[in-house]
Amino acid sequence: MNPSSFTWPIRVYYEDTDAGGVVFYANYLKFFERARTEMLRAMGYEQDVLRDEAGIIFVVRSVQVDYLSPARFNELLQVSSAVTQAKKASLTFAQTVSRGDATLATGLIRIACLNAGTMRPAAIPDYLLVSLTSAPDPNIGVN
Amino acid sequence: MNPSSFTWPIRVYYEDTDAGGVVFYANYLKFFERARTEMLRAMGYEQDVLRDEAGIIFVVRSVQVDYLSPARFNELLQVSSAVTQAKKASLTFAQTVSRGDATLATGLIRIACLNAGTMRPAAIPDYLLVSLTSAPDPNIGVN
Amino acid sequence: MNPSSFTWPIRVYYEDTDAGGVVFYANYLKFFERARTEMLRAMGYEQDVLRDEAGIIFVVRSVQVDYLSPARFNELLQVSSAVTQAKKASLTFAQTVSRGDATLATGLIRIACLNAGTMRPAAIPDYLLVSLTSAPDPNIGVN
Amino acid sequence: MNPSSFTWPIRVYYEDTDAGGVVFYANYLKFFERARTEMLRAMGYEQDVLRDEAGIIFVVRSVQVDYLSPARFNELLQVSSAVTQAKKASLTFAQTVSRGDATLATGLIRIACLNAGTMRPAAIPDYLLVSLTSAPDPNIGVN
Repeated sequence: MNPSSFTWPIRVYYEDTDAGGVVFYANYLKFFERARTEMLRAMGYEQDVLRDEAGIIFVVRSVQVDYLSPARFNELLQVSSAVTQAKKASLTFAQTVSRGDATLATGLIRIACLNAGTMRPAAIPDYLLVSLTSAPDPNIGVN
Repeated sequence: MNPSSFTWPIRVYYEDTDAGGVVFYANYLKFFERARTEMLRAMGYEQDVLRDEAGIIFVVRSVQVDYLSPARFNELLQVSSAVTQAKKASLTFAQTVSRGDATLATGLIRIACLNAGTMRPAAIPDYLLVSLTSAPDPNIGVN
Repeated sequence: MNPSSFTWPIRVYYEDTDAGGVVFYANYLKFFERARTEMLRAMGYEQDVLRDEAGIIFVVRSVQVDYLSPARFNELLQVSSAVTQAKKASLTFAQTVSRGDATLATGLIRIACLNAGTMRPAAIPDYLLVSLTSAPDPNIGVN
Repeated sequence: MNPSSFTWPIRVYYEDTDAGGVVFYANYLKFFERARTEMLRAMGYEQDVLRDEAGIIFVVRSVQVDYLSPARFNELLQVSSAVTQAKKASLTFAQTVSRGDATLATGLIRIACLNAGTMRPAAIPDYLLVSLTSAPDPNIGVN
């Protein structure tokens, strides 16, 4: 599998930091989610449309995050996102938060696809699986 | 009108602070909302029950906040809440955030009552208006 | 005074919404702050540099927000920012959150300039006042 | 090792939820941190005092969270915290979020102890290690 990797720029605002002077540890999960959402959007998929038309939603089943080095107020970060495992009804994303060459945090996020009505596991549509696991489009993620 | 005043204790955690070392300005609105919710609960009203059984929800129409002095990590604050104006379909709360004798912030929050189905203005039930505008019960809000 | 108006695009993510299905009321203050920060940046001023080199920081003294219409998940909003009053040591920003032609929220945010060491009121540097209150540069804020 | 287990009650407010109608996944990390902070406080340790007097701070090195079942607006949750591994300069906490008998999420949080000045690893004071890893005091954590 040759994962499509996507990068999204995120600016650190006061809202993201804490009194320790660094980005609060929970907020990396916000950054990761923004990058996953923008990755889908760059491929042409809007999550509200997927819910209303395909009848599916994505929920997080587990996260694993390693915090390597702190991010600070006003820094411009890059958040990457790539699908490393795709099953019938779940996806695993490998994600990173970087500042230039420095990797600040890494994450493994496991997502389940649910039927938006019953909230039970649902098959991920084939067209979505193909997009998420194919070679990267050189025209996306260049922000 | 002799407003029933209610006080709710709130501890400042890292999540509430920013890199300036103080509570982030948006988070006072979280504190105010917690105190309003707990004031209703202390009077016997749960907002999910009001939505499901009385068919009403409350939404914020306007806020006015004055920030007088900063709150910091690990401090124990007191957040007060009192209804200062009650109309057929809206309420105005006067709220404060204090630390001991020092008032750190004051707020005026205007709330509308909506029909949970149509999202149009709805009359506040009489029993709720009476509770919110009567003299304080000495047994509530003593935390 | 012909205020320089600036607009910044903000996407609504899950983190911004609440169980009512709309953007949580405190989060408009995050959006307003992002737009003020980006307005300064577009004029060439980075707040961490202002703190470290000019020795000043900005703190919010008061906010007034009117919520006119809700914003929802996945919407792309425009947040505007303009200085409507400038004094020696304080600024008032008029801000709006819009979606296309619809204004969703308006805010008046009063900011004080403080000496970063003593935390006492400090004069806003002249170059900054000139930038903030002059006619808009057609090259900024076009996102 | 017989870990001291501690439980802290947490109410779900609108601020904690998202448009999916459930608690936003990043916010479980806030709940976990509140419970760790309150566990230390119940043992007599305030983190601002530890920083100012013992010269140490705690930072999160990694998290692992499994989301089993969603929490919703207005629910009263119990968040537990127990030290399952204690090294010279790091601690691992096993934590859960429950609602009555139902476990909603579990977490493993690895914390490093740093010198507050140099931000380099520092030995955890012996008195703190003893408190965190001894049998539970039946008088704490009963909320």
